[in-house]
Amino acid sequence: MADRKPVCLVLGAGAGIGGHVGKRFAHGGYHAVLARRSDEAGLQRLVDDIEEAGGEASGRLLDASLPDSIEDLVADVEQAIGPIECAVFNLGAQIGNRDLADTSYKAFELGWRLATFAPFRLASALMPRMEKRGRGSLIVTSATAAVRGNAGQHSHASAMGGRRMLCQTLNAEFGPKNIHVAHIVVDGPVDAPDTLGKMLGEHFEAYKKSKGDDGMIDPAAVAETYWHLAHQPRNCWTHEIDIRPFSNVAWWNDN
Amino acid sequence: MADRKPVCLVLGAGAGIGGHVGKRFAHGGYHAVLARRSDEAGLQRLVDDIEEAGGEASGRLLDASLPDSIEDLVADVEQAIGPIECAVFNLGAQIGNRDLADTSYKAFELGWRLATFAPFRLASALMPRMEKRGRGSLIVTSATAAVRGNAGQHSHASAMGGRRMLCQTLNAEFGPKNIHVAHIVVDGPVDAPDTLGKMLGEHFEAYKKSKGDDGMIDPAAVAETYWHLAHQPRNCWTHEIDIRPFSNVAWWNDN
Amino acid sequence: MADRKPVCLVLGAGAGIGGHVGKRFAHGGYHAVLARRSDEAGLQRLVDDIEEAGGEASGRLLDASLPDSIEDLVADVEQAIGPIECAVFNLGAQIGNRDLADTSYKAFELGWRLATFAPFRLASALMPRMEKRGRGSLIVTSATAAVRGNAGQHSHASAMGGRRMLCQTLNAEFGPKNIHVAHIVVDGPVDAPDTLGKMLGEHFEAYKKSKGDDGMIDPAAVAETYWHLAHQPRNCWTHEIDIRPFSNVAWWNDN
Amino acid sequence: MADRKPVCLVLGAGAGIGGHVGKRFAHGGYHAVLARRSDEAGLQRLVDDIEEAGGEASGRLLDASLPDSIEDLVADVEQAIGPIECAVFNLGAQIGNRDLADTSYKAFELGWRLATFAPFRLASALMPRMEKRGRGSLIVTSATAAVRGNAGQHSHASAMGGRRMLCQTLNAEFGPKNIHVAHIVVDGPVDAPDTLGKMLGEHFEAYKKSKGDDGMIDPAAVAETYWHLAHQPRNCWTHEIDIRPFSNVAWWNDN
Repeated sequence: MADRKPVCLVLGAGAGIGGHVGKRFAHGGYHAVLARRSDEAGLQRLVDDIEEAGGEASGRLLDASLPDSIEDLVADVEQAIGPIECAVFNLGAQIGNRDLADTSYKAFELGWRLATFAPFRLASALMPRMEKRGRGSLIVTSATAAVRGNAGQHSHASAMGGRRMLCQTLNAEFGPKNIHVAHIVVDGPVDAPDTLGKMLGEHFEAYKKSKGDDGMIDPAAVAETYWHLAHQPRNCWTHEIDIRPFSNVAWWNDN
Repeated sequence: MADRKPVCLVLGAGAGIGGHVGKRFAHGGYHAVLARRSDEAGLQRLVDDIEEAGGEASGRLLDASLPDSIEDLVADVEQAIGPIECAVFNLGAQIGNRDLADTSYKAFELGWRLATFAPFRLASALMPRMEKRGRGSLIVTSATAAVRGNAGQHSHASAMGGRRMLCQTLNAEFGPKNIHVAHIVVDGPVDAPDTLGKMLGEHFEAYKKSKGDDGMIDPAAVAETYWHLAHQPRNCWTHEIDIRPFSNVAWWNDN
Repeated sequence: MADRKPVCLVLGAGAGIGGHVGKRFAHGGYHAVLARRSDEAGLQRLVDDIEEAGGEASGRLLDASLPDSIEDLVADVEQAIGPIECAVFNLGAQIGNRDLADTSYKAFELGWRLATFAPFRLASALMPRMEKRGRGSLIVTSATAAVRGNAGQHSHASAMGGRRMLCQTLNAEFGPKNIHVAHIVVDGPVDAPDTLGKMLGEHFEAYKKSKGDDGMIDPAAVAETYWHLAHQPRNCWTHEIDIRPFSNVAWWNDN
Repeated sequence: MADRKPVCLVLGAGAGIGGHVGKRFAHGGYHAVLARRSDEAGLQRLVDDIEEAGGEASGRLLDASLPDSIEDLVADVEQAIGPIECAVFNLGAQIGNRDLADTSYKAFELGWRLATFAPFRLASALMPRMEKRGRGSLIVTSATAAVRGNAGQHSHASAMGGRRMLCQTLNAEFGPKNIHVAHIVVDGPVDAPDTLGKMLGEHFEAYKKSKGDDGMIDPAAVAETYWHLAHQPRNCWTHEIDIRPFSNVAWWNDN
């Protein structure tokens, strides 16, 4: 076991950011554990792709909304595969823009459950282990909605805003314990067939085309930035970073 | 009924900001509806004080964590007393600083339930009524934790951060409909026996003394600022404002 | 001299925010000192209006870009009229949107000179006097450009961003000395004939009309908010506040 | 000339971030042009080090406060060496903490001249060239003072706040033109003998020791992050990022 690879656990590993992060970390010498809610076949393809490229990976189905699901996954991965050196929380709670009247209590609560409570549960399960080892990193995919509310974002923005404040609180407690938590403000559309693709359905291709060349974020590029962040030496840590395509002005500019 | 007073509904009306807001608005010609979770006697004293001063007030016990409690209150007040012209959401979720390991799932969820979900429920019940009337205001007491996470604030900061993003989303949808939502960053200790006082218990007096003259926020002063905000003409609305004692440097400064 | 009125000094007192602040403070019992760069006749009319309404006022012409101009004005007012209890810095540096290529070094420097250096000079002249008296307030009109850069705002945003950071630095040093500095983010068009009016020229009326009822900020309403801020008890001070018309979504929302 | 290396121009290339950025980019295949105000011998050593390691570099002395100095340098480098693909603005304006009374007009203006006006001049000289080429990047070293004022930072914070708003304005105009501008919030002490080292003098070593292992930012680590940012594909650009040592809580947390 002495030469066991470090583990990178990705929650929310579809064909977008999560899957590409898995590939990138596997390529860089990690055992990538890819967890997603459904599509076992797609998950297996991801694992196969990584293994064919000479990397190590495992797939897990995970319904993060179920009690103990995240906690059990962490415990199981740590026991069966190895210490989680890097965790990537990549579950979103985007439900599209909805007026207040169309935002049900259930949708509002689900947003919180997936976007705020789930990373809290991950942190609760993971941080004591990382603290015992004296090291680790947690990278949290987030969104523009974490830094400003906007029309139709009642559920999404309040959940993501909670996520950001959670990350800042984790920074304060765990930074000095050598655990790096980074909050990533994804401020533009990601070329991700499993999330934005599903939301837009048949309109996805037309949408992509309307954005022009490089008008959508390539999840492989995001994965490269996550890799960089996870390997910053501890004297030079980033806690927050934003990303967007060149053709999208930043959220703080007029659009 | 033609000369019925406008109603100001205060959720979280103890001896601190909420109670003083009730007094201020009653003094200014509103019927103040004061809602709080417990201490019926204290609530009655508040109502009595207002009436003795020549104002109008009603008291309601409210457990905001119960389903339908806020919704029923809004419906009942609107029917029994009159249209709510101004609502003040003044419930907090401060549980003191706790390390992640000491922040239970239950505490984390309760924080969200009171600090994020409850104002969403209030907005869901209230906004359609205000929208129909073409006017109204909602003032939301908030905290430093809404703008930055900090050590020990896992539950509080993520709940308050969610609250802030909710307010900004409400701004975007309801501002142009002539409904004013304002988010108040209370960035210092409030001289409130029912909240901070209870949290500190026997240490409250020593704490106050340590702060010196005017070293704690006087809830009556806050009420004056709420009054001002609620009566800004619609061409000049504030969406966010911070307050603190002169002797407390702002959260963004080193302390 | 025992019943001398407190002095409110307004730098940038045209027909917009500055002039109305002067009126409001004169109405509230201050001697308003109105300083502006040009239009002596207009200035005199402002003074006359205030005096006719039973208030006290003086007018001064001031070219704030000249060395010693602000410093001499402060010294002169303090000696000739009385201690400045409240100063309102209301000079802007808006030059309209210009691409980088159209922003001359001269324009960029002038922006800084008026929007950043001038309030620093005012603070340098005023704070030692206020500190000696153990009280005072400084209200600084600012703009959206102080919190986010935007297309065409090279000069304006960098000057206003500097202004905001200056105010926050003043907060840290002078708050605990009982001197209140407040930074006002004016996040919408002000119905001010001397500034926006001049910039838009003959298009001003059409612009106003396009904004609809209450679609532009009434400077008299701003003055009311300044009055409120200047009189907050020191246990409850605001350092930053934003204002805009109801029909303008906030800068952080998509427009 | 067909195989001419791309040029990376570093303004402020001492033994800290600037020098290390030069080394990193030379190592990665750029011709590094290192510009600094003084210490020609030190500058030559930097160039020699890079060349001994197999890289390409040139050194230039530059007094950025002089008229035309930056402009001439850009023109000269473009003509004599080649198109500047990446520019790194690394000049600071830190003068230590000073009370308002100890902040002279001259110091305040110098802060602006170096920290706000100089990057504007660089952008004015560089952007038209990059725009003509349809690509380029500008990385701007900045500081905590750009996002919050603090005691003693009258000059530094207002200059850096102006710098940040300038960068955001450049983002809006030049991002869609395929020119990447990134603003780096260095939120902790850098182990830089030429800047912090000089400021602290004989106390530098004791200060470093007090910070513990990895308690100061290693400029070589910063250079690695700059390299990453400068090479993000244009569908995934970062406009703002913060860095600090693990043991320093972020500026938004209590210290």
